Amino acid sequence: MPERRPDPAAGPAAGPHGPGTPGGPALPAPGRALPPAPVDLGRVAEGRVEFENWKGEADRPSPPPPAPLPPAQRVGFAVMGLGRLALEEILPAFAECGLARPVALVSGRPEKARAVAAQHGIGREHVYGYDDIHRLRDDPVVRAVYVVTPNGLHRDHVRAVAAAGKHVLCEKPMANTPDEARDMIAACRDAGVKLMVAYRCQYEPFNREAIRLVRSGALGAARLIEASNTQVQGTGAQWRHRAALAGGGALPDIGLYCLNAARAVLGEEPVSVFASIVNPVGDARYAEVEETVAFTLRFPSGAIAQCATSYGAHESKDMRIRLEKGSIELENAFAYRGQRLRVARRAGDNEAVEEVRLGAKNQFALEIDHFAECILRDAAPRTPGEEGLRYHLVMAALYRSAREGVPVRLES
Amino acid sequence: MPERRPDPAAGPAAGPHGPGTPGGPALPAPGRALPPAPVDLGRVAEGRVEFENWKGEADRPSPPPPAPLPPAQRVGFAVMGLGRLALEEILPAFAECGLARPVALVSGRPEKARAVAAQHGIGREHVYGYDDIHRLRDDPVVRAVYVVTPNGLHRDHVRAVAAAGKHVLCEKPMANTPDEARDMIAACRDAGVKLMVAYRCQYEPFNREAIRLVRSGALGAARLIEASNTQVQGTGAQWRHRAALAGGGALPDIGLYCLNAARAVLGEEPVSVFASIVNPVGDARYAEVEETVAFTLRFPSGAIAQCATSYGAHESKDMRIRLEKGSIELENAFAYRGQRLRVARRAGDNEAVEEVRLGAKNQFALEIDHFAECILRDAAPRTPGEEGLRYHLVMAALYRSAREGVPVRLES
Repeated sequence: MPERRPDPAAGPAAGPHGPGTPGGPALPAPGRALPPAPVDLGRVAEGRVEFENWKGEADRPSPPPPAPLPPAQRVGFAVMGLGRLALEEILPAFAECGLARPVALVSGRPEKARAVAAQHGIGREHVYGYDDIHRLRDDPVVRAVYVVTPNGLHRDHVRAVAAAGKHVLCEKPMANTPDEARDMIAACRDAGVKLMVAYRCQYEPFNREAIRLVRSGALGAARLIEASNTQVQGTGAQWRHRAALAGGGALPDIGLYCLNAARAVLGEEPVSVFASIVNPVGDARYAEVEETVAFTLRFPSGAIAQCATSYGAHESKDMRIRLEKGSIELENAFAYRGQRLRVARRAGDNEAVEEVRLGAKNQFALEIDHFAECILRDAAPRTPGEEGLRYHLVMAALYRSAREGVPVRLES
Repeated sequence: MPERRPDPAAGPAAGPHGPGTPGGPALPAPGRALPPAPVDLGRVAEGRVEFENWKGEADRPSPPPPAPLPPAQRVGFAVMGLGRLALEEILPAFAECGLARPVALVSGRPEKARAVAAQHGIGREHVYGYDDIHRLRDDPVVRAVYVVTPNGLHRDHVRAVAAAGKHVLCEKPMANTPDEARDMIAACRDAGVKLMVAYRCQYEPFNREAIRLVRSGALGAARLIEASNTQVQGTGAQWRHRAALAGGGALPDIGLYCLNAARAVLGEEPVSVFASIVNPVGDARYAEVEETVAFTLRFPSGAIAQCATSYGAHESKDMRIRLEKGSIELENAFAYRGQRLRVARRAGDNEAVEEVRLGAKNQFALEIDHFAECILRDAAPRTPGEEGLRYHLVMAALYRSAREGVPVRLES
């Protein structure tokens, strides 16, 4: 152990000293540079660069540098549907992917598609219209299509992509109805292509840590999950307010995350559900789709999820999990970013609340890279079409419960 | 205003209802899709796509989609020095840039450079060694070089890049000494190239908001700034522990951020400084460079900054600003990510503490894009070499103060 205390010979008034202090030797003037040391140079193994940890053991080591695949080896994706989600989140997220890259676009608006293609260095020959989907078959640089069109179009678009022989990553909700979801699963199976639904929170690190913590058993049995996903809609002129395009209102669009999270945390399927819908009377925005849904999911283990979603309550997207031996709070659980995770449990005679700060990662990039890895390794995705079908069955039961005013049992 | 209350004609027991509820009409089954509405389609103007706000006015609108320049129009950068910072932060950050892209590498390790070049799609003909810097002159795709080598090599590397006619973005600290900094400024001026020093926090949104708040005057005069930047070093075999390569220890490496932030927040130059250095006696890691420095900066307005930096205290990188009418706390102020900003001030008879949550952006990407924009528009960078020279003058005064045990005045 190096000495921090003063040398007694230096006299009683001397404080801790060392080079550069009044009591210590001078710090040397910068001189000739020495050759670099291995700890700074790193080493190369299988095309990746690795560095030794240079920090003290009680500081976090820095994560290894990203090692993206060479661009030509990444899985080429076409992005279908150039709305807000594609332009604000998905296309930017590709820049953080290591296994995937955007190589084509499908859009009904040629001017928009050309502008976006230019931004991302996508050649015009890789820009398709919706009448051209079959032509993707002859574009070898495209191995998968990320379908980001309105929900009510997913079925036809996924069928067309599967018919063109390309793997499909489909935005959530998977479709408008259970029958459409079944149809999509069958189409992809028959075409021999993979189908994944983009339940992005299942790829987001804070959600995954919450799932891990609950399933580890360290906090005992999960009793209650409280999950909320709310926001306020503006104009009713948008597609989310048309039943034909959206398949529903707040429930399939944002309430689905509560359902998704409860199921992922518990690793169980709900056995009965109860839902209450409230819509503002006379508001044309809510003539076709619902504004507010509160719902209860009952699971085989006895865990209950109390969920709430609304198109009329200020933006908040949080989850709390109350277990026998602790509680977990995940703020911004369902948001694109800004997650904060706190875990409360007994510490002797006290209660300790620990904030777990994980390195934030772009969840869209993680989700896209997961699907790319499944394609590269011929593996099954974590969130396949079958999972999407389950949610549609639960949502159908929720709508029925809300309509009839009674709880509804689900078949297992 | 739409009606949320029940229709009295529905009877006294009916709660709020609407489509999909027991008291209301059925939600329609999904039918034929309608053509998309303008609010969903967006519009294209000058190669950018814009969307109308679709949210209620009390929810945050989503920011406009990124509109990166087409790749061939972005400013091509060579990255010089493939250590941790380049591989873990800078090269990944380029993926989030809209105006810049990495097109070349300069490294002394051919195997490492080839691996990194492959990951980023950089052709082998754009990989240079340190003996090749002059050859950058003949590589038209390179317009700027980001120098990420050890501090003690910056002077020679910046001179070589300037001699090759390329603009220079130089990592901080700018050099080892004020004389080296002067030399670099002169070399770039003589060669007619731009020189920017990578004080990344001046491009980071939370730091910029703190600066804006203080300079707005809304919280009155700034009295005290408390800034700390600490971490724990492991092995002394790394270049940061060699005076010739690092020019100093904690002060130029991480303490510099405290100095940089105080000056940026106040918009003033310090007039006198006082520093105390403490080094563990007999620790070979601190024979050439200092471990811990506490320092005081006095500004013309009367504001005082109390700063602290250490290579021996657990990682923390925070700033507090105490003003006449409020206080500002910026957690992780100097970290690569994880900033949290709180502003405390009077609210009537109470104290209100507001957390300001800004959209996080990659500060390296913002810094690189800033320099690229300066090149594209032929503008002066926000953090030029002259600013780097000022810091070296202040740091020289701090070392002198620590060595002599007295405060040191700075020339204005």
